[in-house]
Amino acid sequence: MDGTVNAAAVRVGVLGAKGKVGQAICAAVEAAADLELVAEVDRGDSLEDFVTSRAEVVVDFTHPDVVMGNLEFLIDHGIHAVVGTTGFDEARLDRVRDLLAGKPEVGVLIAPNFAIGAVLSMRFAQAAARFFESVEVIELHHPNKADAPSGTAYRTAELIAEARAAAGVGPSPDATSTELEGARGANVDGVRVHSVRLAGLVAHQEVLLGTQGETLTIRHDSIDRSSFAPGVLLGVREIGSRPGLTLGIDPLLDL
Amino acid sequence: MDGTVNAAAVRVGVLGAKGKVGQAICAAVEAAADLELVAEVDRGDSLEDFVTSRAEVVVDFTHPDVVMGNLEFLIDHGIHAVVGTTGFDEARLDRVRDLLAGKPEVGVLIAPNFAIGAVLSMRFAQAAARFFESVEVIELHHPNKADAPSGTAYRTAELIAEARAAAGVGPSPDATSTELEGARGANVDGVRVHSVRLAGLVAHQEVLLGTQGETLTIRHDSIDRSSFAPGVLLGVREIGSRPGLTLGIDPLLDL
Amino acid sequence: MDGTVNAAAVRVGVLGAKGKVGQAICAAVEAAADLELVAEVDRGDSLEDFVTSRAEVVVDFTHPDVVMGNLEFLIDHGIHAVVGTTGFDEARLDRVRDLLAGKPEVGVLIAPNFAIGAVLSMRFAQAAARFFESVEVIELHHPNKADAPSGTAYRTAELIAEARAAAGVGPSPDATSTELEGARGANVDGVRVHSVRLAGLVAHQEVLLGTQGETLTIRHDSIDRSSFAPGVLLGVREIGSRPGLTLGIDPLLDL
Amino acid sequence: MDGTVNAAAVRVGVLGAKGKVGQAICAAVEAAADLELVAEVDRGDSLEDFVTSRAEVVVDFTHPDVVMGNLEFLIDHGIHAVVGTTGFDEARLDRVRDLLAGKPEVGVLIAPNFAIGAVLSMRFAQAAARFFESVEVIELHHPNKADAPSGTAYRTAELIAEARAAAGVGPSPDATSTELEGARGANVDGVRVHSVRLAGLVAHQEVLLGTQGETLTIRHDSIDRSSFAPGVLLGVREIGSRPGLTLGIDPLLDL
Repeated sequence: MDGTVNAAAVRVGVLGAKGKVGQAICAAVEAAADLELVAEVDRGDSLEDFVTSRAEVVVDFTHPDVVMGNLEFLIDHGIHAVVGTTGFDEARLDRVRDLLAGKPEVGVLIAPNFAIGAVLSMRFAQAAARFFESVEVIELHHPNKADAPSGTAYRTAELIAEARAAAGVGPSPDATSTELEGARGANVDGVRVHSVRLAGLVAHQEVLLGTQGETLTIRHDSIDRSSFAPGVLLGVREIGSRPGLTLGIDPLLDL
Repeated sequence: MDGTVNAAAVRVGVLGAKGKVGQAICAAVEAAADLELVAEVDRGDSLEDFVTSRAEVVVDFTHPDVVMGNLEFLIDHGIHAVVGTTGFDEARLDRVRDLLAGKPEVGVLIAPNFAIGAVLSMRFAQAAARFFESVEVIELHHPNKADAPSGTAYRTAELIAEARAAAGVGPSPDATSTELEGARGANVDGVRVHSVRLAGLVAHQEVLLGTQGETLTIRHDSIDRSSFAPGVLLGVREIGSRPGLTLGIDPLLDL
Repeated sequence: MDGTVNAAAVRVGVLGAKGKVGQAICAAVEAAADLELVAEVDRGDSLEDFVTSRAEVVVDFTHPDVVMGNLEFLIDHGIHAVVGTTGFDEARLDRVRDLLAGKPEVGVLIAPNFAIGAVLSMRFAQAAARFFESVEVIELHHPNKADAPSGTAYRTAELIAEARAAAGVGPSPDATSTELEGARGANVDGVRVHSVRLAGLVAHQEVLLGTQGETLTIRHDSIDRSSFAPGVLLGVREIGSRPGLTLGIDPLLDL
Repeated sequence: MDGTVNAAAVRVGVLGAKGKVGQAICAAVEAAADLELVAEVDRGDSLEDFVTSRAEVVVDFTHPDVVMGNLEFLIDHGIHAVVGTTGFDEARLDRVRDLLAGKPEVGVLIAPNFAIGAVLSMRFAQAAARFFESVEVIELHHPNKADAPSGTAYRTAELIAEARAAAGVGPSPDATSTELEGARGANVDGVRVHSVRLAGLVAHQEVLLGTQGETLTIRHDSIDRSSFAPGVLLGVREIGSRPGLTLGIDPLLDL
């Protein structure tokens, strides 16, 4: 960034470096004082670039068709990986575990969501759920979204419901006897979820928890796609000290 | 309040002075430097007290069974009235107009809702509705409420829908193609309304308006029943200069 | 847009069409069914294009150095103008009035802010200010902003203070006797203004109004620069029926 | 509550049962199906009532002058205690530890704040602080409050600052070069804290955390003093299985 050499900087490579996401990650790595961008690889380039540039960690936001080959190469060469590419089913995860078995010092992080705020808000909601009589979820998105509720809101409600069931907490109180159809939202395992679609919004979620005399609200606002960058950098910094397979960024958050 | 006499203070009487609401109004009048509480009348007391105490304005929060008799007496004696008692249908309003016809200098204000914030938020939503592509309403109440959505939210949505129709604004955009039943809320004349029921809440409403790149949110929070007091005092101060029948506090707000 | 000809569509030209703002306006005009984009003019192009294309309204987002010449040409040719270019002092406005005196059928709208939500929230705050004991302003922006509070928040506080003074409302109650320096915000004519600077934010403002038992909150969120487009289109649609000089989009909002 | 006997119900006594807080706790205990209110003791009553009624846990919201005597009696009789009375300095806490040393099976919980939402929001803010570039605190209270910022906001900011320092996170970015005095709030260990004072509010706090493209907001609203009740009940249910001295309800929340 500033021309000086940081001897302790982590040497980072990026796979899919010319894609929209890849470019954003390259920029974020370059802007970080403790990281050094040593290789940008895209379709047509050779994976060998990571070896010659002595990359310690490689970030992969590519395509389900090529990611398994990428991982095989990286693990084989002792390079840690941070993966945002989608399409990992149990069979693929098992294959990654097998590859790692032969290289126990290598760490691989595979995560479906790198937005730290989204992950934290889900975890906080889960941790708080059993202490409040009532809990509901409101998610708010741009009007071009096809599904209601959002996948994140659905998952959040499921986690809340599980936490309450495990603690023996009963259903949220609700005396509604006259309802205009849909007013009380969707019912996800007993948790009410409301979906707002509004021009001018991007992606937002509120978890409201309430008990006698007090409420706790956990709100996450995401206003552009770059919100994955801080989570990717966190993964890059941490994966070197976490050998084996790590799923999701949650374990990195030490909650 | 402070023992000094304010020569210009409006002389105020209260009918139903021992009820919960009446007591709150008496306290609010006493706390106002420009108002003087001159008579507190409840069941068993004589309406003549308002005459002997030279009340200029009387506040009536009593009962539908007695309010018409009260108004006849007050109008007949040239005393202005601010009425929060319910049960006024068109026949009763016509009767009040007839009584006032014989006393053109007297003013009577009859209002179903004295919460200034609630009335303002409804009016602002109505005024803004036609300038935004999208609009939705979220109302949030304690879990003992029987109806969903609230009457206020329903009325707000109707006013918004009317304003948009009058301006030729089309429906809010919504690409939802997969919906878990109820997620998108209730449909009131094309405006989506979501009802949250949560322990720890009292009565709250949000109108969300959105267009390209910006949103406007109008939120009203009511946390105790005393929220009618400022609206009643506004009525007391204004009704003397508004002869005839005034319905609702909206005209007093000069919007 | 869809190949059909809308006989009643307003014929619109854009000046500064290749700039960032100009491009956004061209796109917005093209997307509007009731408007037709007939001329895109930028540096080096001739203003005559507006005449040959029979533009009825021209939008000008150019530069203070050229805007007066543009206006002279447009008014002279009987073309209405919607102007977002900055730098209009009283002398310039007088010059525009002089030009319009000779063409009484032409309308010119000059506005410093076309974000409808921002203008509405300012007006609503002003209208509501005198009905509440307390009012404070919180503005929240990205951390690269140089001034605190924002110009909009400062102006909003001034308008609120004026409205309260005109209505004889005293200062907001405040029993603070021990204050860590700065905790209570800046004092703008007696109205407290708080400035938050946070990564992940763009431009946001909240006006909080409170009285006994209730609060009213007016919040505006702007998340990208395109938020001027709806206001510009409103101007384009309305200016044809508003001859003479109009300052700000407020009069178009019929509040 | 419903006339049936719950053999497994915890037998609860209340000290200071006639005070405002004590009454609320009695009501909350009576409303809980798994708790049984067996003794209500106030000034003039005998502590022996807890023995004869076989209370298992006693809640003490009394006065610093009497609480040490109460605790000596309760511990001596093998009764667990949940204490909201103030005034515990290190000397007093040591004395309680000494008393407990002789009765290792007894549990005593002493907590300055039983509002679960307040405690959770503080912990969540602390846990999240190191993952975001920016963090600020806004606290909002009724206008009769004497100190700004609130003690809770001050403590929250301290915890945030500690967490960031421990993780090596630098100061929140802030390009402010022109500031109206106080606009940017108070500076608590590098964390900006803003204090709003508004009629109609009670006690509210927002922690705003932001990084590239996303923000996380943790908000706590307390609207009446009864918000301590759920935390007290949590203590009553848990203290039996936590021998020794527990400080604050945090350990009971398993975060």
